Amino acid sequence: IAKEVAKLLEMKAQLGGDEGKHKFVLKTPKGTRDYSPKQMAIREKVFNAIITCFKRHGAEVIDTPVFELKETLTGKYGEDSKLIYDLKDQGGELLSLRYDLTVPFARYLAMNKITNIKRYHIAKVYRRDNPAMTRGRYREFYQCDFDIAGQFDPMIPDAECLKIVHEILSDLQLGDFLIKVNDRRILDGMFAVCGVSDSKFRTICSSVDKLDKMPWEEVRSEMVGEKGLSPEAADHIGEYVQLRGGPDLIERLLQDPKLSQNKLAKEGLGDMKLLFEYLTLFGIAGKISFDLSLARGLDYYTGVIFEAVLLQQENDHVEEPVSVGSVAGGGRYDGLVGMFDPKGRKVPCVGVSIGIERIFSILEQRVEASEEKIRTTETQVLVASAQKKLLEERLKLISELWDAGIKAEVLYKKNPKLLNQLQYCEDTGIPLVAIVGEQELKDGVVKLRVVATREEVNVRRESLVEEIRMRTSQP
Amino acid sequence: IAKEVAKLLEMKAQLGGDEGKHKFVLKTPKGTRDYSPKQMAIREKVFNAIITCFKRHGAEVIDTPVFELKETLTGKYGEDSKLIYDLKDQGGELLSLRYDLTVPFARYLAMNKITNIKRYHIAKVYRRDNPAMTRGRYREFYQCDFDIAGQFDPMIPDAECLKIVHEILSDLQLGDFLIKVNDRRILDGMFAVCGVSDSKFRTICSSVDKLDKMPWEEVRSEMVGEKGLSPEAADHIGEYVQLRGGPDLIERLLQDPKLSQNKLAKEGLGDMKLLFEYLTLFGIAGKISFDLSLARGLDYYTGVIFEAVLLQQENDHVEEPVSVGSVAGGGRYDGLVGMFDPKGRKVPCVGVSIGIERIFSILEQRVEASEEKIRTTETQVLVASAQKKLLEERLKLISELWDAGIKAEVLYKKNPKLLNQLQYCEDTGIPLVAIVGEQELKDGVVKLRVVATREEVNVRRESLVEEIRMRTSQP
Repeated sequence: IAKEVAKLLEMKAQLGGDEGKHKFVLKTPKGTRDYSPKQMAIREKVFNAIITCFKRHGAEVIDTPVFELKETLTGKYGEDSKLIYDLKDQGGELLSLRYDLTVPFARYLAMNKITNIKRYHIAKVYRRDNPAMTRGRYREFYQCDFDIAGQFDPMIPDAECLKIVHEILSDLQLGDFLIKVNDRRILDGMFAVCGVSDSKFRTICSSVDKLDKMPWEEVRSEMVGEKGLSPEAADHIGEYVQLRGGPDLIERLLQDPKLSQNKLAKEGLGDMKLLFEYLTLFGIAGKISFDLSLARGLDYYTGVIFEAVLLQQENDHVEEPVSVGSVAGGGRYDGLVGMFDPKGRKVPCVGVSIGIERIFSILEQRVEASEEKIRTTETQVLVASAQKKLLEERLKLISELWDAGIKAEVLYKKNPKLLNQLQYCEDTGIPLVAIVGEQELKDGVVKLRVVATREEVNVRRESLVEEIRMRTSQP
Repeated sequence: IAKEVAKLLEMKAQLGGDEGKHKFVLKTPKGTRDYSPKQMAIREKVFNAIITCFKRHGAEVIDTPVFELKETLTGKYGEDSKLIYDLKDQGGELLSLRYDLTVPFARYLAMNKITNIKRYHIAKVYRRDNPAMTRGRYREFYQCDFDIAGQFDPMIPDAECLKIVHEILSDLQLGDFLIKVNDRRILDGMFAVCGVSDSKFRTICSSVDKLDKMPWEEVRSEMVGEKGLSPEAADHIGEYVQLRGGPDLIERLLQDPKLSQNKLAKEGLGDMKLLFEYLTLFGIAGKISFDLSLARGLDYYTGVIFEAVLLQQENDHVEEPVSVGSVAGGGRYDGLVGMFDPKGRKVPCVGVSIGIERIFSILEQRVEASEEKIRTTETQVLVASAQKKLLEERLKLISELWDAGIKAEVLYKKNPKLLNQLQYCEDTGIPLVAIVGEQELKDGVVKLRVVATREEVNVRRESLVEEIRMRTSQP
């Protein structure tokens, strides 16, 4: 019977395969999308704001290949490794698409023996996750990373990363936000004093990480049921992870009879105190919340961790607000570069990643809801003609304009109607029309028409470039 | 014996595999590379020149995913299909990395029922080719594509594509260049009158395409030996493919007793004549060569094809000049969108692709050879201190500068030496140093030092931003 079933299944698969061939599906792969010109215009605005901020902080820029040797990614992402896209073995090296920009960065540092760099990297990363595209979660998505590598005095680069998140979220005017911070050493110390054995730190940390999506009761039962923690230990953790606050809370925990006895926790709390001093100097401490429930998923963090979330708010434009998770996150990873170095030499690093897709989803929805018309080209002038048989003259004129650096278009028709040419300007937002006609050619002038006002003025041909520049000097 | 050998080979492979595990290789995948900050600075200059040109011609911009459904790419690239990177089947859809930007563009048009667009797209594409990295040939490389889709009067968009190539190669100052043009219809007509059967057009076209790398004799023997063409037909082709020239040659071929009887050739020659008229209006006909040996590898071209090559020249800086192939290419592909449309509706397209990696190789080598120092950051000022215990004051000041939009850095040390701070400016090209000290703090001033001249001046704190802006207004 099993044999027969297998045969039938095979036949079905073949049929299915053939059907598939006929019904070719015209789509992008699951969890991915194209960007239309309108979406690109929004995306470029966001990128510009982010790049401007990264450059303001003196960052260099690097780029790495979209795929890495498979073994470069192995053992860096813990449970998430199953989400890595592998390439087919076509002979040669085994490759995987990058899962983030942090591991390639660490590989780059080790490979080039760089011990000191401040760099940004904006590129696509790939995760075979369950896409939730309306909420801005994709399988192919951009990350905008800023990282500081090097041996420095504590918390100065860490504080700068938080300042950067604050600047970007403020610049983009996404509404009110909060940046949660914690420290892996505080978490580990907390686990230790609650009676969690060392070997369970990472897995219990993963459970804590779910607190932003699950109620405590569920997380507790995962800890006790699936992960075999004692109910007392879980309840003890439960008390700690409810705590959030600022410098006061840090002081309180530094006085905590158990936590203050734990070396890791004490180190973490001391650095957290210092961090808040620097954040106060930067004038941003008000937006930062020391939050003991923040754990972050990735394995490689070793110190400060943080995550920025947008706060729910009234929004005049949008009826159903986009539900977004964190829009930025990061932390310190002092051991990752050492994993690549042949001699295990460590390069301490701290960095932040801006979650551009979610930010983009919000802004796109905002544009959709508003009446705002977004131009997708920068064309300053359309070269047009009122009469027939002037294609040659149009081409000659537009060539002059291009060579002078003017952004110009022409309709690709031998004899377009003037009305169609003007309509094209209306549709695409081109502000000026340069009209050539028999009379203008004789007089050595071009008729310049302002689309918005319908004003027309004859401009001497040799002054045309200057006139167009003047009239379009404001973007 | 065969069995034993197989066993031994397997054992060897296993040993090799284990060795491999221990000796983890720290590298990027074959045929790929990282871009260092210095390389990125050069790359961004080239991109800016290209994007500026594309925008000058009124192009919108789109983006598509790095991978497509495997079947989207199937049957589009002829013999080159074997170079496509496939992703591993991890359940779900079968995917491949994009091989160029043209097929994704055609898929995008068909999927969104767009019949009229002028767009550019700058992104990485992937080919499992034999890399020749010193000559700028990689497995992962950027393409910069500009395409015009839509039903228009003949040769106007085609001429604009050539104008764009001319503008970009001139802007980038790569030295003298030549743009070869031909037309697939002229090639097919030529094959027909030489006695090649229809079914052999594409494969003979592939042989002709090799003429830039092989002498005619080898190409001829491939045609006759491997592809079964008669020696007479091959010799006849051999006469045609030696021809190159301008409008004169077009006229001569229009008079050619055989070619002028072939419908396809006649159409192609008529359009070529029109193209040269437009190129003359654009003032670029002098750099264009109608070249009957130009064939282009890809299957999807249907009309005009072209390729830009740099001409060998004396180069003062470089001892061994980089040997580069074509730096731009493109053509008309009127059938590709119809291959994706469920009803086969065609959208005529013509486009150009700029081969950025080869251009980049030349410019990089030129920079290496020159003494030119390239800055990799844009930092305007370093916030420094002359005495100890002023970290807080440095952080307060730099925060003010960042908030005012000044690009500023600070050393991540509690008590850095002034000399080290000045040295950092020398190394990275930061032009100004803002020095805080006890006395300056009391007086409400900051000492501003010009790194190049060592000039120092006290600036009132409230005027500092203005002063820095003024002194760094020239880039």
